[in-house]
Amino acid sequence: MDNYEELLAKLLEKLAATNQGQTTISSSNPKIPVGISNRHIHLSQKDIDKLFGYGYQLTKLKDLSQPGQYACKETLMICGPKGVIEKVRILGPARKQTQVEILQSDSFKLGVKAPLRLSGDLVGSGSVTLIGPKGSAEISEGVVVAKRHIHMLPEEAVLFGVRDGEAVTVEILGERGGSLSNVVIRAVENSGLECHIDTEEANALGITPNMEIVIKKNNI
Amino acid sequence: MDNYEELLAKLLEKLAATNQGQTTISSSNPKIPVGISNRHIHLSQKDIDKLFGYGYQLTKLKDLSQPGQYACKETLMICGPKGVIEKVRILGPARKQTQVEILQSDSFKLGVKAPLRLSGDLVGSGSVTLIGPKGSAEISEGVVVAKRHIHMLPEEAVLFGVRDGEAVTVEILGERGGSLSNVVIRAVENSGLECHIDTEEANALGITPNMEIVIKKNNI
Repeated sequence: MDNYEELLAKLLEKLAATNQGQTTISSSNPKIPVGISNRHIHLSQKDIDKLFGYGYQLTKLKDLSQPGQYACKETLMICGPKGVIEKVRILGPARKQTQVEILQSDSFKLGVKAPLRLSGDLVGSGSVTLIGPKGSAEISEGVVVAKRHIHMLPEEAVLFGVRDGEAVTVEILGERGGSLSNVVIRAVENSGLECHIDTEEANALGITPNMEIVIKKNNI
Repeated sequence: MDNYEELLAKLLEKLAATNQGQTTISSSNPKIPVGISNRHIHLSQKDIDKLFGYGYQLTKLKDLSQPGQYACKETLMICGPKGVIEKVRILGPARKQTQVEILQSDSFKLGVKAPLRLSGDLVGSGSVTLIGPKGSAEISEGVVVAKRHIHMLPEEAVLFGVRDGEAVTVEILGERGGSLSNVVIRAVENSGLECHIDTEEANALGITPNMEIVIKKNNI
């Protein structure tokens, strides 16, 4: 009898250890739409003035999934010491600080630093020169590779069992599937449920715009 | 006593179910060097003749990690209906059939199909035109996105507990880490141990040339 109890205790211990750090994917987990971003630019009004002329207003081309955000008709050229990238889309509306979101491969092509950052976290980030139809703007700070994240409402965070700022792992099925860890939850009011990744992340894992992903609760 | 045995049986069953499909990463797992490939071209002698002139021999620039393979001095332009990509490196020696390995993003830029394939598996793959210094070659079949794979010797496969042709998942640590499933084991003689991925896969997961990856035995 004692032996059984000892064995049971050991088995339970093993079970606990096995479950720790293990991925628990429930088929009932709600799926999350994916938004795939190519390189793009958010501008301050001061830089809009420099690049397009004083008081210029950006022209909305189409609304994006996040409320109030839109793609603009206007594009710019990004220049770095090693190369240029033409026709990079501007997203509106104007922001407090200019933010240039590029791909990791763009940073090699341009020859600039682009740390992995969440939107708005720009201290010590990279530098480029933007060329517009009416002038250029040297951006001393604001060049980043966007850190993958999931937008959701606070009440959706409760549903998913996650917290604002938490890092989760998402699973991607398919022939080129796998998982992405350190996907940051951004649970604030006025959000549209969407997992934001860039085109390199999408291509590497075979993710297409109509796919949905699943949160694994534990980060790897 | 019967109750204990029943409980034990259930626990063992649960343990087995829990372990099934679970990642088992041992810290003692041998690490595997990573080789990151950008877009590149393998040419048949017939296409070398067309592009560089009859009987032309490619010029070795540097040896690659796989024995007998080398990067050449020569580059070509790849043309598709939607765009061109200049200065694409040729890898030698000449092969039986021309094979153009591009990135998923290149396939959009060129406007061509590029299925995910292992080297040599070219039936029904994509088509482009190559432009060289002495002529062009229309490649009716041979354009692919390289399927990630791990080269190793048969005796290394035994060490890793994998088989030639098996698909495994590899784990990548770091801020942009995660896992890649369906990485095919290629265990043949005269191989150098290396996991081959392309630059989009490397960038998406923060993989740099000096990194090593670990096989998770179970494919997700």
